[in-house]
Amino acid sequence: MTKSEMSQALLAAKKAKGLTWQQLSAACGLAELYLASVCYGESSATEESAKKLAQTLDVGEPVMRAMTEYALKGNSLEHRAIPSDPFLYRFYEILAVYGLSLKDVIQEKLGDGIVSAVDFTMDVQRQADPKGDRVLITMNGKFLPYKRW
Amino acid sequence: MTKSEMSQALLAAKKAKGLTWQQLSAACGLAELYLASVCYGESSATEESAKKLAQTLDVGEPVMRAMTEYALKGNSLEHRAIPSDPFLYRFYEILAVYGLSLKDVIQEKLGDGIVSAVDFTMDVQRQADPKGDRVLITMNGKFLPYKRW
Amino acid sequence: MTKSEMSQALLAAKKAKGLTWQQLSAACGLAELYLASVCYGESSATEESAKKLAQTLDVGEPVMRAMTEYALKGNSLEHRAIPSDPFLYRFYEILAVYGLSLKDVIQEKLGDGIVSAVDFTMDVQRQADPKGDRVLITMNGKFLPYKRW
Amino acid sequence: MTKSEMSQALLAAKKAKGLTWQQLSAACGLAELYLASVCYGESSATEESAKKLAQTLDVGEPVMRAMTEYALKGNSLEHRAIPSDPFLYRFYEILAVYGLSLKDVIQEKLGDGIVSAVDFTMDVQRQADPKGDRVLITMNGKFLPYKRW
Amino acid sequence: MTKSEMSQALLAAKKAKGLTWQQLSAACGLAELYLASVCYGESSATEESAKKLAQTLDVGEPVMRAMTEYALKGNSLEHRAIPSDPFLYRFYEILAVYGLSLKDVIQEKLGDGIVSAVDFTMDVQRQADPKGDRVLITMNGKFLPYKRW
Amino acid sequence: MTKSEMSQALLAAKKAKGLTWQQLSAACGLAELYLASVCYGESSATEESAKKLAQTLDVGEPVMRAMTEYALKGNSLEHRAIPSDPFLYRFYEILAVYGLSLKDVIQEKLGDGIVSAVDFTMDVQRQADPKGDRVLITMNGKFLPYKRW
Amino acid sequence: MTKSEMSQALLAAKKAKGLTWQQLSAACGLAELYLASVCYGESSATEESAKKLAQTLDVGEPVMRAMTEYALKGNSLEHRAIPSDPFLYRFYEILAVYGLSLKDVIQEKLGDGIVSAVDFTMDVQRQADPKGDRVLITMNGKFLPYKRW
Amino acid sequence: MTKSEMSQALLAAKKAKGLTWQQLSAACGLAELYLASVCYGESSATEESAKKLAQTLDVGEPVMRAMTEYALKGNSLEHRAIPSDPFLYRFYEILAVYGLSLKDVIQEKLGDGIVSAVDFTMDVQRQADPKGDRVLITMNGKFLPYKRW
Amino acid sequence: MTKSEMSQALLAAKKAKGLTWQQLSAACGLAELYLASVCYGESSATEESAKKLAQTLDVGEPVMRAMTEYALKGNSLEHRAIPSDPFLYRFYEILAVYGLSLKDVIQEKLGDGIVSAVDFTMDVQRQADPKGDRVLITMNGKFLPYKRW
Amino acid sequence: MTKSEMSQALLAAKKAKGLTWQQLSAACGLAELYLASVCYGESSATEESAKKLAQTLDVGEPVMRAMTEYALKGNSLEHRAIPSDPFLYRFYEILAVYGLSLKDVIQEKLGDGIVSAVDFTMDVQRQADPKGDRVLITMNGKFLPYKRW
Repeated sequence: MTKSEMSQALLAAKKAKGLTWQQLSAACGLAELYLASVCYGESSATEESAKKLAQTLDVGEPVMRAMTEYALKGNSLEHRAIPSDPFLYRFYEILAVYGLSLKDVIQEKLGDGIVSAVDFTMDVQRQADPKGDRVLITMNGKFLPYKRW
Repeated sequence: MTKSEMSQALLAAKKAKGLTWQQLSAACGLAELYLASVCYGESSATEESAKKLAQTLDVGEPVMRAMTEYALKGNSLEHRAIPSDPFLYRFYEILAVYGLSLKDVIQEKLGDGIVSAVDFTMDVQRQADPKGDRVLITMNGKFLPYKRW
Repeated sequence: MTKSEMSQALLAAKKAKGLTWQQLSAACGLAELYLASVCYGESSATEESAKKLAQTLDVGEPVMRAMTEYALKGNSLEHRAIPSDPFLYRFYEILAVYGLSLKDVIQEKLGDGIVSAVDFTMDVQRQADPKGDRVLITMNGKFLPYKRW
Repeated sequence: MTKSEMSQALLAAKKAKGLTWQQLSAACGLAELYLASVCYGESSATEESAKKLAQTLDVGEPVMRAMTEYALKGNSLEHRAIPSDPFLYRFYEILAVYGLSLKDVIQEKLGDGIVSAVDFTMDVQRQADPKGDRVLITMNGKFLPYKRW
Repeated sequence: MTKSEMSQALLAAKKAKGLTWQQLSAACGLAELYLASVCYGESSATEESAKKLAQTLDVGEPVMRAMTEYALKGNSLEHRAIPSDPFLYRFYEILAVYGLSLKDVIQEKLGDGIVSAVDFTMDVQRQADPKGDRVLITMNGKFLPYKRW
Repeated sequence: MTKSEMSQALLAAKKAKGLTWQQLSAACGLAELYLASVCYGESSATEESAKKLAQTLDVGEPVMRAMTEYALKGNSLEHRAIPSDPFLYRFYEILAVYGLSLKDVIQEKLGDGIVSAVDFTMDVQRQADPKGDRVLITMNGKFLPYKRW
Repeated sequence: MTKSEMSQALLAAKKAKGLTWQQLSAACGLAELYLASVCYGESSATEESAKKLAQTLDVGEPVMRAMTEYALKGNSLEHRAIPSDPFLYRFYEILAVYGLSLKDVIQEKLGDGIVSAVDFTMDVQRQADPKGDRVLITMNGKFLPYKRW
Repeated sequence: MTKSEMSQALLAAKKAKGLTWQQLSAACGLAELYLASVCYGESSATEESAKKLAQTLDVGEPVMRAMTEYALKGNSLEHRAIPSDPFLYRFYEILAVYGLSLKDVIQEKLGDGIVSAVDFTMDVQRQADPKGDRVLITMNGKFLPYKRW
Repeated sequence: MTKSEMSQALLAAKKAKGLTWQQLSAACGLAELYLASVCYGESSATEESAKKLAQTLDVGEPVMRAMTEYALKGNSLEHRAIPSDPFLYRFYEILAVYGLSLKDVIQEKLGDGIVSAVDFTMDVQRQADPKGDRVLITMNGKFLPYKRW
Repeated sequence: MTKSEMSQALLAAKKAKGLTWQQLSAACGLAELYLASVCYGESSATEESAKKLAQTLDVGEPVMRAMTEYALKGNSLEHRAIPSDPFLYRFYEILAVYGLSLKDVIQEKLGDGIVSAVDFTMDVQRQADPKGDRVLITMNGKFLPYKRW
């Protein structure tokens, strides 16, 4: 069973059962976004989480097993360097417009290094607003200073 | 005076005076990241902010004037679709790895639409941590539902 | 059922029944272009519109359901950054030739911001002309000023 | 004098004199967008229009002469196939999302052909709206049916 | 039936019957090159021509019907911007080497505009030559002057 | 003196003297398009032609000498695989739309081979037409059969 | 039968019979490299050669017939402009490193022109060497001088 | 002195003195093609060869010194993955058309490995031919078998 | 049996049997990384190694045979020039950041040449570290000096 | 002073003084490769190391200061995704050929994660060998397990 077959099975089961990411998150103890990335085949789950998720979604052993494996990541962009979906593109645009500012402000505070995308968590919240609801995205990454040797 | 010349002048003045983004932010009333994006020629400033910034950095009228103009944005990526700088690249990687999950979780909560990169603010904080400091990046964008017509 | 399968089903049904976009528009209350973008799998429909459309085209529940889902958009360009179809290409060319002029004229009128492609409608009309009929395309997008923070 | 030097001269003169595109349009009898495209070096002007524009902007003979020449068009995109400026990008996105729908609806009405980007005019209007002003862009292109031979 | 399936059916039938483009051209009244472009799924045929062609090649109603539809054009290049087939490449090379000269000579004669690739015919002839036969390709396109507005 | 400097010198001299390609062609005995390609630095001239051209345009020895040298060809496309100028693009489009048809029709007539872009001439004529003038482009290339060995 | 199916059939038969290119070359009278290019679907064979090859490899009439057809060439590179296989890449590297030298040395000897890749043969020999065997590749192409017109 | 400045100096001196690659080769004891690649800044020369060459071409110490340095190689292709010059392109085409055949024939003879482009020599000869002179290019590369470990 | 089918068979058998690369390495006498590259279809095995591996993994003759064949290498990157998987990307980044330094330091020590990727071995070790385990990657390649001729 | 100007100054001083990377390393206490990456503008130095290096190379305060700044990294590849220099390319090739094997072997040993290119050191040694000297490259990177949240 490939990661892609696993992904189709999980997303189909979620739709069939009418469960939201929030409900699945509550059931298996993983954060919504991390959980979704497991289902999209980008992240791997521990055997324990995978079992809970498999049980909740009523999918078989091979799907459960596939969740614990390590996949080729980075497939959100498919064959394109620049995503054509408008939702995805906006995050590319933020990088294009604010990238250098982000780098300068953070490096001024913490030195020569990067923000890890591996020792990293992300959260998303809906923020009610009379002028139109807003989305609050929080990224939390370890700062990794460049080793000098 | 082009935006690029303005940018060089502002960054040189900031370095010469030994001011941090935080100090400049306090002096002109713009958030650190927005301020930096003005100095990198990506965002425009109101005449009032531009004047305060010009005064603090001791740059002339043409530089001040240039800050109020509207530039071609998106230059953080230069001639590349994919940034080669490791700091910048990590944000591209987050999109590649978590893009579809982000889209799915947010659209499940708010419907068919996007998170604005224009009606948008971003903040960055250093988070002390005994296992190595972390960086907290908060993005706050208006959710724009697709208009059906 | 994927968006792509849904799209094939809808377009096949439209052809089989010999209905025009105008007739479908009258039947389901969506504008021609929006309706077409639903059928091409780019836009989503409310359950109400989807039901009317499914009824008119005599397609089943799964097709109807698929119309209400949120797809990865932007597939008109397939695997190419630049469309090879001459009809599609002309709109790319308009951007290449008049893009900067459009940006300058609009920003001079409304300030630093963009024209939304999300809070957006588009209409197309045939304009009879003895020297050869013309096409009138009207785009109506909300102006989104850049938030300063 | 290259088209690019001409363009810099014209835009600098316009800024120095504090004239808007609307005022220049009134002075030389060309529509705002066409006029802007002449100044950006994309379109050519008749000797008569060029002279009026040169007079209004107080630029010399070589600049005037350069306006009447035929340039390499399409420079709004510079070295990129996909524009990185958010304002420009939205028009690329409209093509990506609504391209096939536009093609289908128009070809159903007028047959196998294209909308000309040469026998073409474009207009832009600000539309006041209490929920946020909107921009109305009107494209008017001759329909060119494919010749069968 | 997709354009691509139609194309396979027509080319297979042509091969099976051992007919040349010239013979097919005589049978259905379309020029060789236009006829070939119909069979490759790039151009559309009137119902009358399609019927004659279907009869001559003994293909069924769906193939005939498909010939009258409007396809996504431009597939000679497949997924490449630059064709890798040597025959096709030579025409790309002619553009690379003589493009600017062609533009300059034609625009000097006819003004700011383009040669239409839509109101356009093309013919090809074998020219016997003792030093090796030559190919004569004639392109005939309407000159479209840029509209000034 | 580089080919690019030579090109600027020749085109400037042509403009200053107000000569057309046709007049230059008459003066130096080269066809208009070939002559233009010499001036754009794509083709080389014999010493005899170069001298006549230098004399007519009143340019010095180094320019004359540069015309006889062999340059890197193919610069009409600059840094792009696909030309952004609409005039140039139409020829790319003809290749994209009619490329396979051209290949099939010609190879059926002459066998496995290509049309040379080196043993090649091209001519362009204005064709008066009450419905709008047309351009007649004639390409004449030696057919080169693939050698079997 | 497509060229790609033909290719698979021929290579499978060659492997099944345990024949080398040299043995096949002896059997059908084509040079090893040309023969291989026929089997990879790049070159076409005369009916006579195709029959001999079909007989030797014991493949049927459709495979034989397919060998005589003219294919889209250039598939060694698949979807990449730059080959990722190290064997293939070295030839790309030779072009990158020695291309300009080759052009200069050959054009100095023979004038403005190219070395034909169509009226062209290639041979490969193993050269025993105590320090490690070497490969001798000989390319023999007609020099095609640029026609001046 | 950069490699590029060195290259300009050497090629200018060669032209000024009217020397051919053959004459230079005789003077400094390097093969024509290798010598040319030194002058184009792709290869390095020993101090001895560099001195002879500098003397013959009458260029100074810094140019001589620069010839002995190790440059970034591969500049024949400039900013393009696929060369636009027709002379250079033919070698790319040979790779596209005959690449797989070359790989298969050579690997069948010598096993899993590559032909070195480093332990490599190349020679070019003019071959007189009544039907048009030919060019004979000989590449001689060490076969490097893949190490198994 | 294609290399890709072979690869799937081998990886599936390894998973089914629950064997590690280290255990397989011990069983067949190939180093872990080389062995893995055989299983991923990049490297070829001698008949002896292939037999041992086939026996250990209990796969049939065709899989064994396929391991001894020479494949098109370089598939780790699939259709992308730049890998999107974060693990793979880091090695691309090392090249981007330290490439020139590596070249300069090595060439200063050994002269004008390259480090072979063919006469090459690679080893990987886990290095326990209280601050987080590390990975030690050792590359050992023959230095190939450029041949001067 | 830009990083690029700093780099030119440092490399020129090193050449002028005839110092090797090893000698510079001894003088300033940084490893050869790290030191080189400081001089190529990729890495930053502490004030202490920068001062020692500036003293040894006799360069002024601005150069010293520039060494302590944080640059845009990743310039070894310039404008290309794939390096054209053969030395640099071999490391790209190692990734293309052995990338998946490296990922699989390391992830099997250490789990879902990456090898850091930031908490990372690299060393290079010449290894004498009678069959031709070899180069030993050692990469030592912290393993960063994916955080599950």
